[in-house]
Amino acid sequence: MEIKIMKNILDRNQNKADEVRSILASKKVIMVNMISSPGAGKTTLLERTCEELAGRFRIGVIEGDITTDRDAQRLKKYNIPIVVINTEGGCHLDSHSISKVLGLFDLDNLDLLFVENVGNLVCPSQFDLGETFKLALVSTPEGDDKPAKYPMLFREAKAVLLNKIDLMHYTNFNYDNFISDLNKINSQVVLFEISCTRGDGLKNWYNWISDQNLKPNFISNRL
Amino acid sequence: MEIKIMKNILDRNQNKADEVRSILASKKVIMVNMISSPGAGKTTLLERTCEELAGRFRIGVIEGDITTDRDAQRLKKYNIPIVVINTEGGCHLDSHSISKVLGLFDLDNLDLLFVENVGNLVCPSQFDLGETFKLALVSTPEGDDKPAKYPMLFREAKAVLLNKIDLMHYTNFNYDNFISDLNKINSQVVLFEISCTRGDGLKNWYNWISDQNLKPNFISNRL
Repeated sequence: MEIKIMKNILDRNQNKADEVRSILASKKVIMVNMISSPGAGKTTLLERTCEELAGRFRIGVIEGDITTDRDAQRLKKYNIPIVVINTEGGCHLDSHSISKVLGLFDLDNLDLLFVENVGNLVCPSQFDLGETFKLALVSTPEGDDKPAKYPMLFREAKAVLLNKIDLMHYTNFNYDNFISDLNKINSQVVLFEISCTRGDGLKNWYNWISDQNLKPNFISNRL
Repeated sequence: MEIKIMKNILDRNQNKADEVRSILASKKVIMVNMISSPGAGKTTLLERTCEELAGRFRIGVIEGDITTDRDAQRLKKYNIPIVVINTEGGCHLDSHSISKVLGLFDLDNLDLLFVENVGNLVCPSQFDLGETFKLALVSTPEGDDKPAKYPMLFREAKAVLLNKIDLMHYTNFNYDNFISDLNKINSQVVLFEISCTRGDGLKNWYNWISDQNLKPNFISNRL
């Protein structure tokens, strides 16, 4: 019985996700679904990314949070459109909540829409939001076994960001095990090794995410 | 409609949890529901706790994992009864899965039953397993904002373990903010500041968990 309920929920989610994806494609907006454990560094990555790219691309953010707007507060200074979705206990965003807030953005004047999902390695992986692609963030203090133990996200992600590499040598994180497990699950994935606080490896990330943009000439268009 | 489904699921879970709790009480077994983000240190805490206490108390472990038995493998050397529940994608344990495996333990000869829930700060907090109490683990690299952002767990936990305090000064973890948020949510909670890898603060934890035991004289009984 619960399996049937889950199938209904996922089917309805999928239909709405397809709708969202088609709207975004028609507007040439890239939507990035960011998924990680709590505290892996999603908001700090957004801070760094806005600092570097907000002048070159038109960035928007959807903040999925259970109860506060703390992450959105941290991003306010970048003067970008931000919408907070409080799930009130819910463990993930779904395509219906994204669909409801999409109209709050001026999609004709948006290039990249980052969705910071609820901090959770499990449930957000199961719900398509209509995103262009998923991004998996994982940090070295969490341990090297996350791809093996939470394979679904790592299988579906287009890119993996291994954050807090500056802390790696203070922990027992085994880099070779991490890479080997990740390759078994997803040999196509793009990997960035970064430290959002110290800046390591972020240049490669900025270049890669810039290359995903579908409206590269907007700045000259606006001039 | 989804709210009604969720209510039904939670009601059925609660009935079974009450049943589990009553069995455990009659056998004087303490069941500890351990909840944290992925990689906060639940398994390492169990390793340390088994090393210190497995000679003094009869310990059992239920390992909740999505897909592997890696955590159980790490505990094998302590020669204690361990049961793995693979949730196959499920984001939390529930009382029905606990009820099904409870009979695999010799409850008359068990003092402490640790349940390592699926690594997830959100969903496991919503499902009563019939535990004696919940334990919240959080680690300093995750950031000081976890109690404010994931209040349900911290509200329900009898004790909070702040792990990886040896990494605190390499991060921007703000201790005062953490304590202030935690006190607002749960002023009664017992807090342990520990490093499972370096050993800091573990003595207080061993003493406290030993004091929870309901069958303190088992060793002299067995002699």
